[in-house]
Amino acid sequence: MARKTAPDSTRRSEKSRRAIYDAALALVSEVGYQKTTIEGIAARAGVGKQTIYRWWSSKADVLLEAFLDLQEQAAEQVAQPGQEQGQAPEEYAIPDTGDLAADLKAVLRATVDELLDPKFEAPSRALAAAGVVDEKLSAEFIGKLLEPQLQLYVRRLAAAQDTGAVRPDIDPRIALELFVSPLAQRWLQRTGPISYEYTDTLVDYALHGLAPR
Amino acid sequence: MARKTAPDSTRRSEKSRRAIYDAALALVSEVGYQKTTIEGIAARAGVGKQTIYRWWSSKADVLLEAFLDLQEQAAEQVAQPGQEQGQAPEEYAIPDTGDLAADLKAVLRATVDELLDPKFEAPSRALAAAGVVDEKLSAEFIGKLLEPQLQLYVRRLAAAQDTGAVRPDIDPRIALELFVSPLAQRWLQRTGPISYEYTDTLVDYALHGLAPR
Repeated sequence: MARKTAPDSTRRSEKSRRAIYDAALALVSEVGYQKTTIEGIAARAGVGKQTIYRWWSSKADVLLEAFLDLQEQAAEQVAQPGQEQGQAPEEYAIPDTGDLAADLKAVLRATVDELLDPKFEAPSRALAAAGVVDEKLSAEFIGKLLEPQLQLYVRRLAAAQDTGAVRPDIDPRIALELFVSPLAQRWLQRTGPISYEYTDTLVDYALHGLAPR
Repeated sequence: MARKTAPDSTRRSEKSRRAIYDAALALVSEVGYQKTTIEGIAARAGVGKQTIYRWWSSKADVLLEAFLDLQEQAAEQVAQPGQEQGQAPEEYAIPDTGDLAADLKAVLRATVDELLDPKFEAPSRALAAAGVVDEKLSAEFIGKLLEPQLQLYVRRLAAAQDTGAVRPDIDPRIALELFVSPLAQRWLQRTGPISYEYTDTLVDYALHGLAPR
């Protein structure tokens, strides 16, 4: 975690942290990553600059946690939580009903909803744009935000290999890209419309292949 | 074409146009799309601002043509030209040797080379980053630069449907994304390494599917 010290557990600091997340996400949406500053976030959140520096060491750290928080909210809607309450987001998993196609389609449909949600879209675009030209930022955010989500697909595909639904010689880390990356590119580069029908089609094509069977 | 009037066919104006393209691509690489200006391009190219405004109406137009020129140079290396010399770049096609997998792998390997070429990488990243947050710019550049390339895959896959190598019920415009988008995402978001082995694997997975046959 990027947070330097554990936050106070008082209601007051929880409220401040939420205000800081909201301010950081709003600001990066409006002016982009480069022009977002700790000072700007503090002013917008109505807190002192020192309040932010007490918890985080840089704007990248604040934003990373704001996105992790946003992602956790989304994950609560799309994936099934671990057995115990209060588990870390890494404990979320893609449902395993025994029907791989149905499970993948359900998660991708939820991702479509998330990508089209304005609350998520604007800050995510601003961050993605910054990452395209900033290798250090990209490594930090991809490693902590995107890759853990992709690993959920790796686990679901590996489970499908155990039951014989996916060929044993397939590399799950590459395989997931056949349905995840097309959706990502359509969203990032606006190369085509995004819909449930589209992501359902991607899953069918990926599982059964383009060549005749 | 965005060019307002046809350029002089003299050697001198051809040299100016080349200098302007080089300046535009270098500048966008260094300072990003937002901070690139017609004035900056003119100064770097060693021409007057009016020389640029005589041929193009905006920096987006200059950059679009600079990229089309860069793309045409790359296309000459990766795709086979039409039968007649001097044909437009749209006449380029993905080779059809009768072996779909081999043809797709060859073109994707050439794309890997292009994506890893510093001359191409820096300006392309700058433009892609701008497109992620700028919908109008994105529509212009995707429509004129990326989509024509994707249509080459559509035609090759449609030809493969005629010979039975691809199922007739497949939508080629979606199918191509199974191998093109993973490469695009790894490059754009640095989500993994790019290599010939990787793109070969994508083609095999896409054609034969992840499920057992």
